[in-house]
Amino acid sequence: MKRLKSGEKFSKMADKEQVPPVDGVDGAKLSKGALKKAEKAAKKAEIIAEKKAQVGDTAPADPADGEDVSQGHYGEQPLIQSKEKVDRNLIKVKELSKENGKLVDQLVWIRGRLFTSRAKGKQCFFVIRQQQYTVQALLAVSGSVSKQMVKFAAAISKESIVDVQGYVRAVEAKIEGCSQQDVELHVEQLFVVSASEPRLPLLLEDASRADSGVNQDTRLDNRILDLRTTTNQAIFRLEAGVCKLFRDSLDKQGFVEIHTPKIISAASEGGANVFTVSYFKNSAYLAQSPQFYKQMAIASDFNKVYTIGSVFRAEDSNTHRHLTEFIGLDLEMAFNYHYHEVTDQIGQLFVEIFKGLRDHYADEIATVNKQYPAEPFKFLEPALRLEYREGVRMLHEAGIEMGDEEDLSTPNEKLLGKLVRAKYDTDFFILDKYPLAVRPFYTMPDPNNAKYSNSYDMFMRGEEILSGAQRIHDSALLVERSKHHGINLSTIQSYIDAFKYGCYPHGGGGIGLERVVMLYLGLDNIRKTSMFPRDPKRITP
Amino acid sequence: MKRLKSGEKFSKMADKEQVPPVDGVDGAKLSKGALKKAEKAAKKAEIIAEKKAQVGDTAPADPADGEDVSQGHYGEQPLIQSKEKVDRNLIKVKELSKENGKLVDQLVWIRGRLFTSRAKGKQCFFVIRQQQYTVQALLAVSGSVSKQMVKFAAAISKESIVDVQGYVRAVEAKIEGCSQQDVELHVEQLFVVSASEPRLPLLLEDASRADSGVNQDTRLDNRILDLRTTTNQAIFRLEAGVCKLFRDSLDKQGFVEIHTPKIISAASEGGANVFTVSYFKNSAYLAQSPQFYKQMAIASDFNKVYTIGSVFRAEDSNTHRHLTEFIGLDLEMAFNYHYHEVTDQIGQLFVEIFKGLRDHYADEIATVNKQYPAEPFKFLEPALRLEYREGVRMLHEAGIEMGDEEDLSTPNEKLLGKLVRAKYDTDFFILDKYPLAVRPFYTMPDPNNAKYSNSYDMFMRGEEILSGAQRIHDSALLVERSKHHGINLSTIQSYIDAFKYGCYPHGGGGIGLERVVMLYLGLDNIRKTSMFPRDPKRITP
Repeated sequence: MKRLKSGEKFSKMADKEQVPPVDGVDGAKLSKGALKKAEKAAKKAEIIAEKKAQVGDTAPADPADGEDVSQGHYGEQPLIQSKEKVDRNLIKVKELSKENGKLVDQLVWIRGRLFTSRAKGKQCFFVIRQQQYTVQALLAVSGSVSKQMVKFAAAISKESIVDVQGYVRAVEAKIEGCSQQDVELHVEQLFVVSASEPRLPLLLEDASRADSGVNQDTRLDNRILDLRTTTNQAIFRLEAGVCKLFRDSLDKQGFVEIHTPKIISAASEGGANVFTVSYFKNSAYLAQSPQFYKQMAIASDFNKVYTIGSVFRAEDSNTHRHLTEFIGLDLEMAFNYHYHEVTDQIGQLFVEIFKGLRDHYADEIATVNKQYPAEPFKFLEPALRLEYREGVRMLHEAGIEMGDEEDLSTPNEKLLGKLVRAKYDTDFFILDKYPLAVRPFYTMPDPNNAKYSNSYDMFMRGEEILSGAQRIHDSALLVERSKHHGINLSTIQSYIDAFKYGCYPHGGGGIGLERVVMLYLGLDNIRKTSMFPRDPKRITP
Repeated sequence: MKRLKSGEKFSKMADKEQVPPVDGVDGAKLSKGALKKAEKAAKKAEIIAEKKAQVGDTAPADPADGEDVSQGHYGEQPLIQSKEKVDRNLIKVKELSKENGKLVDQLVWIRGRLFTSRAKGKQCFFVIRQQQYTVQALLAVSGSVSKQMVKFAAAISKESIVDVQGYVRAVEAKIEGCSQQDVELHVEQLFVVSASEPRLPLLLEDASRADSGVNQDTRLDNRILDLRTTTNQAIFRLEAGVCKLFRDSLDKQGFVEIHTPKIISAASEGGANVFTVSYFKNSAYLAQSPQFYKQMAIASDFNKVYTIGSVFRAEDSNTHRHLTEFIGLDLEMAFNYHYHEVTDQIGQLFVEIFKGLRDHYADEIATVNKQYPAEPFKFLEPALRLEYREGVRMLHEAGIEMGDEEDLSTPNEKLLGKLVRAKYDTDFFILDKYPLAVRPFYTMPDPNNAKYSNSYDMFMRGEEILSGAQRIHDSALLVERSKHHGINLSTIQSYIDAFKYGCYPHGGGGIGLERVVMLYLGLDNIRKTSMFPRDPKRITP
């Protein structure tokens, strides 16, 4: 939360620039009717805002409770509509601790959500939550605290946002239920800033439990409540971390960030699983990946590029790891002589991401593990690279029957992940040199064995999180391979043309962000790592 | 370009992991027919690849030229298919200079594009280009260089990618046409790595000239050539810089990066200008902004968030500053008491972006200015904030007739930009407190004058680049305002619901990336700052 450290500055600016409101006539753009309507609406908004404001500073009194000594020290705050600049420093919950000595026994203001509350006679205990941090507050009838005020506190709906003023007091016994365990707040003033409806469709305590029986649709239907759990706060902070580490690692290597269009003129890559868009009087499609465009950026001399953006797959499959819309972390780079320059670069990228998460997101990982226990993620540096044939050999040894050039089924991928972990002690590895027949048309064939290709997948805990390859940078070979895949050349003409005017040999890969986070944390469903997930059955909220 | 510094390591790895190719039968997943087809295709690919390889190391000889002393030192290189790992260090063009003393008189390899070439008797001068860097190379008949080799060099198509080996020689007279002015390369070996077609639909010299008569559609139709100009190389590097500066500035302030869905269930914000998507058996829409979702992230306690992603506007307008798809840099944050906490934060964000560009992208700015001259961008720290009424007053003084609560027309915005620059010496300013009637339904009304609102636009060189406001965080007021705007509440129910369970007061804004770059550089068309622009008439390449 931003604090008003610069209160004086705000006031000064306001003074300097305060121009008295001027009523004026409306001109060219609004008709008289529209103007009247606008004025009427403005009036109405004003009335609502005033009503909010009139709720005033105190709650209605119960005469049985006698004179209210706390009058003016509690109640519903008027709607914060930026009426004035308040010179008040709000302390963060995470700063409240005995160690932060200067705060102990001080009178402070905090703003947070009412997480839990329980009234007991003349006392009310409640817990204030700010993201993953919680502190206990105590309101007890005293010379300055009235019965009425304690009643008011006890009646505040959970999840309401409150401003609390109180003394920070050190406690003897650890407060087990809170993140701040060595202090509590002795409340002097209490105002509701934004009230929650009393009936919550999802209780945060339920949603936060390890053995939570809350089903996923209930969570997703009420996602804005679900996202408030400490677990979800941690998951999406870590997800932001993955993007940051991805970019930082590639920026260091001289990559350029680019942005590629999502609306494309033809269903590329075969035409399956693509969403159609009405585009003025015509049709267009949603890009299934930035593949063509990041390659075109290489053909345009950008040399090393990455892009983070939405990709769309019209797959009608409802699995634990498919979404119809997800975030792709894509990279593409020119190399000199061998595509392993690319493979090594991507392997190192993952190593840096894993190290960064381990070193800088330990709190988030621990928080998530509390609700969803998982084995720590293991990796090697440099990353392990196995050839596809070696992977198939390991599966054969484990009793799996499959052809050398057959694609890996999902169960076989999982099994291979287990075998690799047992043998090499890593949850991450690169599987190199896939059979040509199972890869996209733009994949460079292996020069040493035409049944294979210069392509690779990368795996985390036995699930694919990246697919990549050396691409064909020669337009004649590309045309040949497109034809073989039955692609209508006219639909990808501009892509083919990109390789007619000289192109550096290049390769790259595309990473599914939500999968990386899911698998790193050992979660069981990709909907847990997409803030507002999209699947064939869900496009809301 | 990545260099093979670690050649030894590559070789070792290759040795260790080289598994002899194993032919196998295909199993469960491919039918026998499919398998045969795949094998046939693989064969064909092999043949093409071999044909490429057979082009060999030398060009066909002309017997009239006598014995070829350069045999094996020039020709077309086989397709780089990663057949082997080559232990050769490729030097970057930008490293070639007299100052880099250790390279002078050394024999080096470089890889780049043949930018220009001219043969003169027994000599051929050519220029090698790597992104924005160029160096002159000289090939002259000598004891080791044959007539045939010079002929071969003279015949290479422009834009082909070549590997050149030569001695770095210091020169007396500056080479004016090149970025590397104090050295040239005396060529010993020359191979074509990837040949360009001889006829280019767009000549780079033409596309690079200040008074270039090349029209925009020709450029965009041949975008992969157009993007190779030094100007475009600089524009998109600077654009990446804007994103990086945006993120770095907000990361420091504790913002969390989020990703919001682009496929949404209902045409939000009134329903105009929205693209429809076929979503399995139903319809969905493309998000016109991440507005609702970034606010929902605030309601979910993420406190300060930003997101960079594609936004879609189905506006059938073909102007210099509209695209149907562009990149939005969006942010949203909870504040304590007054939305100017947000305005100040965004103002400071822009100041940091402008400083970062000035300090770290001076080369890129100078490069762009060479082709498209523009006045340096001026800004103040802290950023200037004016009230809307003050802006209208300035326009009145300049002879413009308009109402106080009328929206600004595009010409009036431009004029205001000029007036502000004349008075305050800044190309960037914040215009605060817009009339309520001209803002979206979720805008918080001004508590002091219901005709106005807690909203702002920000301008660069007199054009709007950000629109933002304090949002309504109270569901009752939000319902009221939605109804007034004639919005079908059922279509935005999940958005409304987000504010029922307590929400911090918050505000934010959305920035158009391409506009920021266009206006910062003083360019005249937004298509210059979108790598593959989309407008009502263009969705390809």
